[in-house]
Amino acid sequence: MKSDLSNLMRARDLDALMISCPDGLLSVNTAFRYFTGPAHVTNGHIVVARRPDDADLQITLVHTPMEREEAARTGLRLHSLGNYDLREIYQTVNGDRLAGQVELTRRLFNDLGVQGRVCFYGVDERGSSYIFLDALIDANFVEVVLEYGDDILSEARKTKDADEAAQIRAACRLTGQVIGATREFLRGHRVSNETLLKPDGNPLTVGDVKAFIRREEAALGLDDPGCIFAIGRDAGVPHSAGAASDAIQLGRTIVFDIFPRLPGGYYADITRTWCLGYATDEVLQAYALVKEAHDRAEAMLDSTRPSWEYNEMVCDLFEAHGHPTPRQNPGLTEGYVHSLGHGFGLAVHEAPAMRLRALTGNDDPLPPGSVITNEPGLYYPDKGWGMRLEDDYWLNPNGTLERLTEFDCELVVPM
Amino acid sequence: MKSDLSNLMRARDLDALMISCPDGLLSVNTAFRYFTGPAHVTNGHIVVARRPDDADLQITLVHTPMEREEAARTGLRLHSLGNYDLREIYQTVNGDRLAGQVELTRRLFNDLGVQGRVCFYGVDERGSSYIFLDALIDANFVEVVLEYGDDILSEARKTKDADEAAQIRAACRLTGQVIGATREFLRGHRVSNETLLKPDGNPLTVGDVKAFIRREEAALGLDDPGCIFAIGRDAGVPHSAGAASDAIQLGRTIVFDIFPRLPGGYYADITRTWCLGYATDEVLQAYALVKEAHDRAEAMLDSTRPSWEYNEMVCDLFEAHGHPTPRQNPGLTEGYVHSLGHGFGLAVHEAPAMRLRALTGNDDPLPPGSVITNEPGLYYPDKGWGMRLEDDYWLNPNGTLERLTEFDCELVVPM
Repeated sequence: MKSDLSNLMRARDLDALMISCPDGLLSVNTAFRYFTGPAHVTNGHIVVARRPDDADLQITLVHTPMEREEAARTGLRLHSLGNYDLREIYQTVNGDRLAGQVELTRRLFNDLGVQGRVCFYGVDERGSSYIFLDALIDANFVEVVLEYGDDILSEARKTKDADEAAQIRAACRLTGQVIGATREFLRGHRVSNETLLKPDGNPLTVGDVKAFIRREEAALGLDDPGCIFAIGRDAGVPHSAGAASDAIQLGRTIVFDIFPRLPGGYYADITRTWCLGYATDEVLQAYALVKEAHDRAEAMLDSTRPSWEYNEMVCDLFEAHGHPTPRQNPGLTEGYVHSLGHGFGLAVHEAPAMRLRALTGNDDPLPPGSVITNEPGLYYPDKGWGMRLEDDYWLNPNGTLERLTEFDCELVVPM
Repeated sequence: MKSDLSNLMRARDLDALMISCPDGLLSVNTAFRYFTGPAHVTNGHIVVARRPDDADLQITLVHTPMEREEAARTGLRLHSLGNYDLREIYQTVNGDRLAGQVELTRRLFNDLGVQGRVCFYGVDERGSSYIFLDALIDANFVEVVLEYGDDILSEARKTKDADEAAQIRAACRLTGQVIGATREFLRGHRVSNETLLKPDGNPLTVGDVKAFIRREEAALGLDDPGCIFAIGRDAGVPHSAGAASDAIQLGRTIVFDIFPRLPGGYYADITRTWCLGYATDEVLQAYALVKEAHDRAEAMLDSTRPSWEYNEMVCDLFEAHGHPTPRQNPGLTEGYVHSLGHGFGLAVHEAPAMRLRALTGNDDPLPPGSVITNEPGLYYPDKGWGMRLEDDYWLNPNGTLERLTEFDCELVVPM
């Protein structure tokens, strides 16, 4: 969490971090939003500086003059780009845009007292990133440090503090409302020949349901990158988002995996599997087993055992009932075909994870503060079905487990 | 437009382009989406290769096995990452992740026949981009070419072909529907003490209106990065998005600037200014002048005159009526405080633009195929009002001008 940053920077001997967000890239610039939060600051820089005689970091938001009011909402120390006369800077470098950006950075670092080893973050075009950082290395007024994976911000973001957990809890609660409204929406349709019909007599489709879901999310202020609502064979393919033209029919498995985020950027990630009206015996049995895997993993969740134990337990259970698992065959397309869970927060996928022992490579437990999904599933596309059950949890830093999702796990939806 | 790419690559002596989209960054990876279009391919690479004896470029989508069905929808030549055994590759480089990615790229280029001068595009983390490209330069199996601004894809995207114009036209049509529904929504409220009231007796707020707008957009399949709905003083600050708690009142200017996109990624960008019930004489006179500027610019739009002529004409007009313009003072905060128009497409802001002569730096006309906004405005925050009128146009490559937006320009909304 953020309070770890000071120690992480000391351990890597970093004096400062600079996290940049160019105009237009805020939606994916999670490292920038990690500091700016729900305030609508669309571009600028975060400068995190370690001060030699003080444990506290100095975190400054470098903002455009136009966004001064939103910038103030972050509660961060502010520094305006309006302090710099860009025309004058470009004149001093004969209009060279790259040299101008380097000179602006030099003045900025000088004014903020940034020196020493500085690590650079934020999303941007690859070519511009290379050329700018290369020029900065040449200019040599700080030591440019770069990371390829295993970066310090991802390390800090592995665990969430109470404020972050509160935002994720709020996203989960609203997402639960959308799931409930969607079930009622489905139940409100009449059925003919096992098919749900709209008032105009045409079959209700996956596309219609997704439009309903988008409207519900929008009404609650949730931003949706696109959910999975997949029926029948598509439900058996974990990454199929569902075909818009598919009709909604009774008795077939529907995998509904929804992962929207709040304006502050924190996601929820919940999956329910439904069969409208009835389910076949085969599906009922498989679902009972998935539910058992889910509940056993939930009961084990803590910060003591190696993070691979959960998924190994689920593989034991599924294999004992004859379902193939990736432990036996990494490339399989039926049975239990993915990992048990993943962290999330400002991104839908973050560290840590609950994976196989062979893929984990260490015996580290889930650290206190982890926010993680628990999502066992079984997939048989050739039999025309698939299922997954996904809830979210926060391993409270005090040692207790909190389930962040509340929605019931009923498979069969009475019509 | 895309058909210019072959000549642009030849002019810069480039043999190939590689445009990469990491998982999770599709929403901002416009260069990738330029080729994949509305198909929901969330990650992979586009490789554009020039063939020596042929004018046609070979465009290949390198996709994950999981996304093969969506990849096929693009109509592009396909190449699956399933052809490469990542475990074997990582073994050959002793598990080094960076070396593994370089080796994967080497095999990929070998299989696709890519050699010579290759330029790299796509959005990613700055540090990873630098380290990967630096390793690729060292590996030396192609000549790595990088651009800082003025890149070849932005150059191609300056102009739009008929297919792109059709997508933008569709986005503009749906956005017009949202604007119309919003006006009807406002008109459906009762008024007391000059304030619109909700059924529960509380004032209707900007936040309520924005929630309505999001629901309407969602129902039409439009993705919204957040619109401007600003009233009174906020309407006088062009980049204020509007304060959620502001009550909607009669007689005050409302700037409604909405720029959603379709799933294919193409935006619309429309602004209307409304006064509910009535407008003051000062506002009526200013709006008539803004409308005149808008209509005169529209009447001039073509591909013959220098692109700065439009904005200079608008400055002439505003200055003649005593309104300050940026031609007199670049830092002004009242009067006409921005440029006349900007290109858009897969991004809300793209080249070309209609700016001041001093900022344009050349006499180039708007090229045939330009999609551009025309958006004069006047802003007086201290007087409590602001206004802007924005429509979108396509300079058809055949030489005719098409207005892409249809919504009426009535200032006063009868209540």
